[in-house]
Amino acid sequence: MGSIVLGMVNGALMFGNEDVSNVPDSDLIALVDPESANINAFDLSVLRGDGIFEATTVWKGFPVSLENHLRRLAHSAALMDLPKPNITALTRAVKQLIAAYDDPEPGPLLRIIVSRGLDQETGIGRAAAAAGDNQPTVFMFIDAKGALHETDPISMASMTRGYPSDITARAPWLLNGAKTLSYAFNCAVHRECARRGVGDAVLYTEDGYTLECPNSSIVARYGDRLITPDPRIGILHGTSQRELFAWALQEGQHAHYKKLPIAELREADRLYMVHGGWVIPVNALDGKAYDYDSAEIQTINAAIHDGRTHDDALAIGPRGDYE
Amino acid sequence: MGSIVLGMVNGALMFGNEDVSNVPDSDLIALVDPESANINAFDLSVLRGDGIFEATTVWKGFPVSLENHLRRLAHSAALMDLPKPNITALTRAVKQLIAAYDDPEPGPLLRIIVSRGLDQETGIGRAAAAAGDNQPTVFMFIDAKGALHETDPISMASMTRGYPSDITARAPWLLNGAKTLSYAFNCAVHRECARRGVGDAVLYTEDGYTLECPNSSIVARYGDRLITPDPRIGILHGTSQRELFAWALQEGQHAHYKKLPIAELREADRLYMVHGGWVIPVNALDGKAYDYDSAEIQTINAAIHDGRTHDDALAIGPRGDYE
Repeated sequence: MGSIVLGMVNGALMFGNEDVSNVPDSDLIALVDPESANINAFDLSVLRGDGIFEATTVWKGFPVSLENHLRRLAHSAALMDLPKPNITALTRAVKQLIAAYDDPEPGPLLRIIVSRGLDQETGIGRAAAAAGDNQPTVFMFIDAKGALHETDPISMASMTRGYPSDITARAPWLLNGAKTLSYAFNCAVHRECARRGVGDAVLYTEDGYTLECPNSSIVARYGDRLITPDPRIGILHGTSQRELFAWALQEGQHAHYKKLPIAELREADRLYMVHGGWVIPVNALDGKAYDYDSAEIQTINAAIHDGRTHDDALAIGPRGDYE
Repeated sequence: MGSIVLGMVNGALMFGNEDVSNVPDSDLIALVDPESANINAFDLSVLRGDGIFEATTVWKGFPVSLENHLRRLAHSAALMDLPKPNITALTRAVKQLIAAYDDPEPGPLLRIIVSRGLDQETGIGRAAAAAGDNQPTVFMFIDAKGALHETDPISMASMTRGYPSDITARAPWLLNGAKTLSYAFNCAVHRECARRGVGDAVLYTEDGYTLECPNSSIVARYGDRLITPDPRIGILHGTSQRELFAWALQEGQHAHYKKLPIAELREADRLYMVHGGWVIPVNALDGKAYDYDSAEIQTINAAIHDGRTHDDALAIGPRGDYE
């Protein structure tokens, strides 16, 4: 029990379609001391950032958008040639982790990490494989003591991602659309934001189409229409963005995916940055001010956190062929 | 003593210009059991691939190109806004690690890893920082039991990196030219090579200029001239490539950096893939066969390994303004 709960998960049981209903909880996840060393130096998460992850908020015990996060983890796994995650087993491990959390903070962060396992190019990895122990490394944590989400309005700058908008289909080895552990670029964008005195960034392609933020999605409002970039351009399909879309549709508003020029994004009436179960208002982009409605933001976040949007969000996604 | 030697390095002493001559060896590096967990799960190497590394061969006790590797580590650190590595302290740590190695294998791999430290966005990172303990994480290992370099001829395919050739100056947040721990892309390229049945890849820009291989440099021979892509396009400055250039110059041949069209690379008489203290002949690129001379390869590698090219390699690099 604690404010920071770390569990090392049984990697052998977290992939494939095996029925784990007869596996006891204690075989699925082992809680460990988060202050100790728990990862081998030859793990591919450490040496290569060769893995995937998901992160969300646990609001009063409810892991926001968990199904969509685990589905997206499976999508990332497929793009990375990792084995197929066992959603049922992972969900049970998450529940045990949540049961061990007992901090007063209502909204700690949950992160689920999967690496390819020990590096098979190293002697330690080879010895483990020879002993039949070469499954992916899986761990997860809940953290009430790190940075938590805020809903203060945030300023933004736009920056190029360096790619043309048609690269994803042509070069799948770029892993565009996979949420990998190789986040050095995302961290560098945030340092560039700090240098520029803005809170976050929205990335665009070399030919001027909106992508995503380093660890968030971007949604634009035009009247009663919400628009977000079609993830098939090579970005993550936002879990919180889908919750926001579900809220808008429930309210009789409209919500669409499209290939969105960054110039058109700048013409929005309002902008929302969304991630980890939270919608955050954007009050500036590239020096232009944007209106926001704190009451609306509060209403949307409440709808997401109390689960009102959850079921509808599962069915939301782009339709038809990619333009 | 062993075949796999892992040392956790004192991060507080490995940066800046502090004189470490009075610091005892035992304060610089601590040898640990490589089979145990030695890394905290909240380290930025694990969670974000937010760090840098270098790798080379230790040939009969001699760490090949170590100065150029450590200089390049310092260059990567600057591109990543990491503190400046203390080359003297790192060199001493490497020597202690080598002293602990006692496997019959003459050419184990040495890898030096630096992460930004514990993630300050997590509770564990914040607690450590509050206790004054928030320096980068540094560790290094020598491994005789993992994949070792071979000099068998290798086949290659060319693949796009997705970027235009002018992106590096325009978008430093892409970290082009830094050797980061975020290697998921590089690993993905190698999986794509396996699918295509080739040994490795050479990457090029969207406008057709040669870059580098996922963990190697590429050098082309035209008669008595060696050509490699100018690193200022946004690639690593190859350490082994500089050793190869030093050998060529000692032999009265010519060696140049240039912005090298991939079409011109394909017209080379010979191609060399170089990394980690080894020159490896390329026998095919995109299905075209290339001649190679095993005796030449052996001669070059011997010159690199016995240190003959070492001093000259320190002074090699592109001259004048970048085209």
